[in-house]
Amino acid sequence: MTRKELIDNIRSKRSCLCIGLDTDIQKIPQHLKKSNDPVFEFNKHIIDATKDLCVAYKPNLAFYESLGPTGLRSLEKTIDYISDEIFTIADAKRGDIGNTSKMYARTFFEYFDFDAVTVAPYMGKDSVAPFLEFSNKWVILLGITSNSGSNDFQMITCADNKPLYHSVIEKSQLWGSPENLMFVVGATHPKKLNQIREIAKDHFFLVPGVGAQGGDLEAVIRCGKNEDVGLLINSSREIIYAGSGLDFQDEVRKKAENIQQKMAAYC
Amino acid sequence: MTRKELIDNIRSKRSCLCIGLDTDIQKIPQHLKKSNDPVFEFNKHIIDATKDLCVAYKPNLAFYESLGPTGLRSLEKTIDYISDEIFTIADAKRGDIGNTSKMYARTFFEYFDFDAVTVAPYMGKDSVAPFLEFSNKWVILLGITSNSGSNDFQMITCADNKPLYHSVIEKSQLWGSPENLMFVVGATHPKKLNQIREIAKDHFFLVPGVGAQGGDLEAVIRCGKNEDVGLLINSSREIIYAGSGLDFQDEVRKKAENIQQKMAAYC
Repeated sequence: MTRKELIDNIRSKRSCLCIGLDTDIQKIPQHLKKSNDPVFEFNKHIIDATKDLCVAYKPNLAFYESLGPTGLRSLEKTIDYISDEIFTIADAKRGDIGNTSKMYARTFFEYFDFDAVTVAPYMGKDSVAPFLEFSNKWVILLGITSNSGSNDFQMITCADNKPLYHSVIEKSQLWGSPENLMFVVGATHPKKLNQIREIAKDHFFLVPGVGAQGGDLEAVIRCGKNEDVGLLINSSREIIYAGSGLDFQDEVRKKAENIQQKMAAYC
Repeated sequence: MTRKELIDNIRSKRSCLCIGLDTDIQKIPQHLKKSNDPVFEFNKHIIDATKDLCVAYKPNLAFYESLGPTGLRSLEKTIDYISDEIFTIADAKRGDIGNTSKMYARTFFEYFDFDAVTVAPYMGKDSVAPFLEFSNKWVILLGITSNSGSNDFQMITCADNKPLYHSVIEKSQLWGSPENLMFVVGATHPKKLNQIREIAKDHFFLVPGVGAQGGDLEAVIRCGKNEDVGLLINSSREIIYAGSGLDFQDEVRKKAENIQQKMAAYC
């Protein structure tokens, strides 16, 4: 998907909501557990209940891989089920030497046909570049993450007096453009969002950490948006586990709608 | 596997060789491509030809994932085929927020039953800790990698005048011990190996980059070993693609034997 298509979707749906499909087979409603493919069945219900309210889905690879080949099959069916008009993100946090990153890029962009993949920056340029070679596909590079461990290395002050995440966001702009490179910026750091917007004016940010992790939605939008909105705000657990009964998808829709309505004023 | 068992294996085999199973279906010998599961068939031949010469196998997840569920099935069969006496490493470079890292840990330590997994440090303590909670299982944390991109962030000088990789290796020693935490230190930085041995005296190092990537085996051993050897030296492409004909496994064995013999004097 191109940047323009993504922005058009955000404008027409008045939403920058990304729904994280962190589908844990232990946590899905009881009545779905009897189906042939409970993980896919659950995702299908979530997608049906929310597809007009969000602009992106983000399956978290760990949850699918933990079920082995069966889990990857559920993932495959999930991606096939999502309309091409919705942006899809493989939340995989990959990154390896060039020939290996190339294999990961093929996995996510060719085999599964995701629009984007999250990539960890520690291994530098040649671990990121292979993902940037696919047209209309995206790298979403970790900048500041939403977890407490983001303090351990991302915030380390470097000799140029800037924190490490700052170097990551600056340097990687030499490798990709706002047309194929986004950054992960955790919602748990709203003040930093503002500073990061200064050094990456046109790039989209994928913002996790609203909801279960405690980030404030409206603070995130105010601090992070640019003139194209420029944000994909993710909520996973708060939405997908909003209900647990036979009508769980109604609770899921209500929660997603509630978030989308808060976004509408800004999108 | 415990540290003691690993060291005993190194001593009895006089080898610290780890063979990387970066099995690319495009590169395997023609005659195996007709089998039901060419990737597993190839791995089986490699394992049969080398199991007395190496102490570890390291499948690279990217190569299996690129084939979708079928690839994970080949991986599963490969791990089951490797004797419990040989250390197995999932080269996966994972790392995510706590609840996701926990799912990855279950994937590699429970579903596949690997002994170790490579983990990227960028997301800090709570992205690494869930992997350290499994007994007799190992985290192999990226310190300095063997690729050119290691210069981009790993070598950045931090405010304490130390490079970032130094902080990673020092700080993470508060989270794990030499009994469950190793570091990746690329063979392409032999002088740094020496310095890193100073700050991580008892930890094992997984050393990639010998062979196809140009690292010098004997320099690595001299600079990196400790009194327990403390090294797993990986070779992937150089060994597994040593031959391509009907007798490829003979070439593979010859290459592995050649490396093991150089190691014998030190192990």
